[in-house]
Amino acid sequence: MLSREDNELLTRVGRGTPMGATMRRYWIPALLARELPEPDCPPVRVKLLGEDLVAFRDTQGRIGLVDELCPHRRASLFFGRNEECGLRCVYHGWKFDVTGRCVDMMNEQESTQFKDKISITSYPTLELGDMIWAYLGPAEHAPAPPRFAWTQVPVTHRQVSKVIQETNWLQGLEGGVDTSHAPILHRLITTNSSRPGFKPTNPFVRGKAPVIELDTTDYGYQYAGVRPLDEASLHVRTYHLILPFHQIRPSQTDRGNPLVAGHMWVPMDDETTMVYNWEYSPTDEPLNDEDRHEIERRLGNGPHDVDQETFRSLRNRQNNYLLDRKVQKTESFTGIDGINTQDRAIQESMGAVVDRSREHLGPADRAVIQARRLLLEAVRTTMDGGTPRGVAPTYYTLSAGEAVLPRGANWRELPAHDAARLSATPR
Amino acid sequence: MLSREDNELLTRVGRGTPMGATMRRYWIPALLARELPEPDCPPVRVKLLGEDLVAFRDTQGRIGLVDELCPHRRASLFFGRNEECGLRCVYHGWKFDVTGRCVDMMNEQESTQFKDKISITSYPTLELGDMIWAYLGPAEHAPAPPRFAWTQVPVTHRQVSKVIQETNWLQGLEGGVDTSHAPILHRLITTNSSRPGFKPTNPFVRGKAPVIELDTTDYGYQYAGVRPLDEASLHVRTYHLILPFHQIRPSQTDRGNPLVAGHMWVPMDDETTMVYNWEYSPTDEPLNDEDRHEIERRLGNGPHDVDQETFRSLRNRQNNYLLDRKVQKTESFTGIDGINTQDRAIQESMGAVVDRSREHLGPADRAVIQARRLLLEAVRTTMDGGTPRGVAPTYYTLSAGEAVLPRGANWRELPAHDAARLSATPR
Amino acid sequence: MLSREDNELLTRVGRGTPMGATMRRYWIPALLARELPEPDCPPVRVKLLGEDLVAFRDTQGRIGLVDELCPHRRASLFFGRNEECGLRCVYHGWKFDVTGRCVDMMNEQESTQFKDKISITSYPTLELGDMIWAYLGPAEHAPAPPRFAWTQVPVTHRQVSKVIQETNWLQGLEGGVDTSHAPILHRLITTNSSRPGFKPTNPFVRGKAPVIELDTTDYGYQYAGVRPLDEASLHVRTYHLILPFHQIRPSQTDRGNPLVAGHMWVPMDDETTMVYNWEYSPTDEPLNDEDRHEIERRLGNGPHDVDQETFRSLRNRQNNYLLDRKVQKTESFTGIDGINTQDRAIQESMGAVVDRSREHLGPADRAVIQARRLLLEAVRTTMDGGTPRGVAPTYYTLSAGEAVLPRGANWRELPAHDAARLSATPR
Repeated sequence: MLSREDNELLTRVGRGTPMGATMRRYWIPALLARELPEPDCPPVRVKLLGEDLVAFRDTQGRIGLVDELCPHRRASLFFGRNEECGLRCVYHGWKFDVTGRCVDMMNEQESTQFKDKISITSYPTLELGDMIWAYLGPAEHAPAPPRFAWTQVPVTHRQVSKVIQETNWLQGLEGGVDTSHAPILHRLITTNSSRPGFKPTNPFVRGKAPVIELDTTDYGYQYAGVRPLDEASLHVRTYHLILPFHQIRPSQTDRGNPLVAGHMWVPMDDETTMVYNWEYSPTDEPLNDEDRHEIERRLGNGPHDVDQETFRSLRNRQNNYLLDRKVQKTESFTGIDGINTQDRAIQESMGAVVDRSREHLGPADRAVIQARRLLLEAVRTTMDGGTPRGVAPTYYTLSAGEAVLPRGANWRELPAHDAARLSATPR
Repeated sequence: MLSREDNELLTRVGRGTPMGATMRRYWIPALLARELPEPDCPPVRVKLLGEDLVAFRDTQGRIGLVDELCPHRRASLFFGRNEECGLRCVYHGWKFDVTGRCVDMMNEQESTQFKDKISITSYPTLELGDMIWAYLGPAEHAPAPPRFAWTQVPVTHRQVSKVIQETNWLQGLEGGVDTSHAPILHRLITTNSSRPGFKPTNPFVRGKAPVIELDTTDYGYQYAGVRPLDEASLHVRTYHLILPFHQIRPSQTDRGNPLVAGHMWVPMDDETTMVYNWEYSPTDEPLNDEDRHEIERRLGNGPHDVDQETFRSLRNRQNNYLLDRKVQKTESFTGIDGINTQDRAIQESMGAVVDRSREHLGPADRAVIQARRLLLEAVRTTMDGGTPRGVAPTYYTLSAGEAVLPRGANWRELPAHDAARLSATPR
Repeated sequence: MLSREDNELLTRVGRGTPMGATMRRYWIPALLARELPEPDCPPVRVKLLGEDLVAFRDTQGRIGLVDELCPHRRASLFFGRNEECGLRCVYHGWKFDVTGRCVDMMNEQESTQFKDKISITSYPTLELGDMIWAYLGPAEHAPAPPRFAWTQVPVTHRQVSKVIQETNWLQGLEGGVDTSHAPILHRLITTNSSRPGFKPTNPFVRGKAPVIELDTTDYGYQYAGVRPLDEASLHVRTYHLILPFHQIRPSQTDRGNPLVAGHMWVPMDDETTMVYNWEYSPTDEPLNDEDRHEIERRLGNGPHDVDQETFRSLRNRQNNYLLDRKVQKTESFTGIDGINTQDRAIQESMGAVVDRSREHLGPADRAVIQARRLLLEAVRTTMDGGTPRGVAPTYYTLSAGEAVLPRGANWRELPAHDAARLSATPR
């Protein structure tokens, strides 16, 4: 449960809001690198923290991320021409370089030198891990680059995707740090199904309700869901939360190779979130085509499910996510295909911004509760002039794992991504 | 004409509003029984008086009608699993029985006994007349079951349907107690047309503008539209209004058998109404397939016109109800097919909540005016702690009739459903 | 730049607003004459200055323009029957003549004489130039008929069309009095393209940024964009603004015949505008079929582009106006087809009502700035009880022209439509 005031505080991210100011202290993903595939390619609309922006890649490959509206008469630069090292508004031909400087004005006589007085808001960007990141905060506070382990592996080892969710960002994050729902919402109810999900034979599913063991860290927290399996053994699955919205969790290919995976829930505005998804192979073995296809199908975020221009899913609220009640009776817990689609369906069903003053939380919600505490603390820290948790680059090497351990063993000593240990057990 | 204040008073039905409190003193239809066809069938969304609910039929055939949102984290139970005697949220596996008790929590360890502290709002229901009724009011005021005559005939004699109307409920009701519009809006302008509607030869159409004769009763009122036909005779058609939203009127099959019919205008929210329609044969003769098909086609609410999952009509505001201007010139008064579709078209054209302070009412609107008076009185009675008109079960045997009578005859002595007398006259 | 207050003042046009009162002092186009093609044809919805109206042509060919909602119970007269010299509401059969008088009431007994007390708001209309014009202002201020030159040429010489734009009216007008954007937004970037637009060889495009030379007049202003072409010559293009929303500009057929053209930006409500377009041949030569087809295709407002019932364009915000990025790279500046579609795309991209307090205007925006000044003055004049500029019929003979002139020549001495001089130059 959260007071209405704190709920507002955590969920509002526009310019001038406390959480908005906090979010603007971090590098945040603005788009997939492949959305700007080459120099002088078409500009792309980007909505970030309630701000309407346009991104373009200039002739030299540099990224520009600028206000959508031209400062002249406020026409949209989305309709602009990406020309020789600048984005030109088609209404009157004002042209801006990636730094936001106005470098040409077709409608005015050169003698006016009017253009030298004009610039457009522009944000610094960097490319890392197949994504373009932006920093929307005060220049003097620009943090170190977001060099997560997943951003540093070769492109052959990594898969990324994104999809729009019609809720506030926090609803997504809370699902991501809530291990207790995963073997329920995402379970298969028969071993015969070829649909994505956790099979009944998987120890993650066979285990009882979890105890949440959580260590707060300087970037957020690490926690494990510890599930009694039988008298002798436990199932353990570890996660990280890096503020403001990064999750890291264990994963696995169909052929049993370990993966590390995660989400980022990036606020487009208060009621819309771009969910970024990544998975990578932490071993020497790259992802092959089958692995990639399987990841797409498993999450439900590949090009067959999500329009790769609008990033809207074909399975959406209007069609009840193509819920099949017969499949729900006989194959999967939800009757909806795609792990992340299941998350999205249930989180959108809570409304755009869930009323957290009317919840009833229990011990299994401990990681959710602690996430809110740390976020509230980050807001206070920022408001007090400090640097919130998760800005300092202490998270570069984090990974996550999953294992069946003998009772009494300490999961904190587990090799970081230990899914290999599970590869012999049925999924 | 109604003051703005009284218009607000009568049209707002959410929890906490005076009319909302009044409506909650009656049994109201929540869904068609066939929407929950068998034990453990899929749950169904129900919107009633501004409340978002989910209905399900459990393993033993009992009906549950509960809040849509799970009390845990407020995910929608529409996505839930209808399992062994309970509806289970798919997010964390909380399960509720038809009384709203939480009977299982998959995500929490059993030792917590957390579930014993949890319940969900649940409303009493009953099945009657192929419908599932709900009572959303204070338990101590629960009224007698709504045993209308039409609910008590064998299923072989009755036909029910429903359709969503995009207006406040009162706009529908006012059309339903307004005999003066019926032979105008619903008339055919040629005897050759096979479209539904009142033919020019029908005495209902041939009669002049009606005098409204109205008797207030303990359940609402009975009234008749009395139309001069010629020097010797009158056409009379009787109706009942049972508070808060029940209409009873005479009807007839194509082959001339008498029927009794009616509507209920059930508020989904202030701007959306579920229109329930029923007709039954009051004689020994059941409805045959042709009768049923004809009723569907006549009202425009059968499965060819109204989607039987969403209950949205294919003829709607977006497509001007498929208005055919050529048909309007040559066959029917409106050019729109379906008696009830014509009502819906014209009532939706008035806006979601019509501004009754700008009306100009005449003598022909007397039944409309009296309906408002009785509804305002019902609100005051409820607010004063009393029991509003129409709660006490004094309406169980009401019927309605239509006849051509000699001038001077008393329609109040007419056998209740006297449409048979008209079967020899052209329709 | 405009203060927020002045921006509100100029853009709000509903009844009771200062600009609304000012607009109501002029004849304004309500619909195309062809929308009411014959006596007793179907009525048509008209939205004008925020008012919902219905237009009909009665049995004698007279135009009625009345409130959409029947004064009885406020049903829409759009669904009405256009009968013998009157529009009849289908709900209760109330019938109104073109003056708004209630001439029949089917639901009331004649003896009541109730109808004599009832009328509906009705506005005077006139037909001129293939359009139906309305006057929504005080009767005592009704101005002379809007006899623009374009309304007075034979129908063989004129082409009219209309399309809905999802912005406030002023955004459209400002584009229309802004010569500086025309050879930028509408330019072709290759001479090989057969798409509509100004070719690179056209002196309008070859000229440098314009100097705006503007003469304020008793109807608004005349201005010219004067563009240096080379040491010896200038390109000049003249325009008129007649208050409140008339533009006149030069045009030309593909075969080089001169045309005069213009737009009117008629507010439907504060956020929606009906853009009326007209072109005519000012010479003895009528428009032939090819000319007409070419005008349709050039503007993008013909029946292949704009639905002729709803007047919505197939190229719209939802589909990014079918923007083709490849065409934008190689053929046209925008990649969008249709001159007026390009205007609409860019003006809609500014939002429904652009925030003019955040603009940065330069010398090239002089005509835009002066238009706002004159409109603000017209509002003040009206509020002070005077007659605003443009009401008096001083604009009947205005035309516009375009020419290449020797430096030093005076464009004010140019024959009014001098496009013929350009016919020898490449377009």
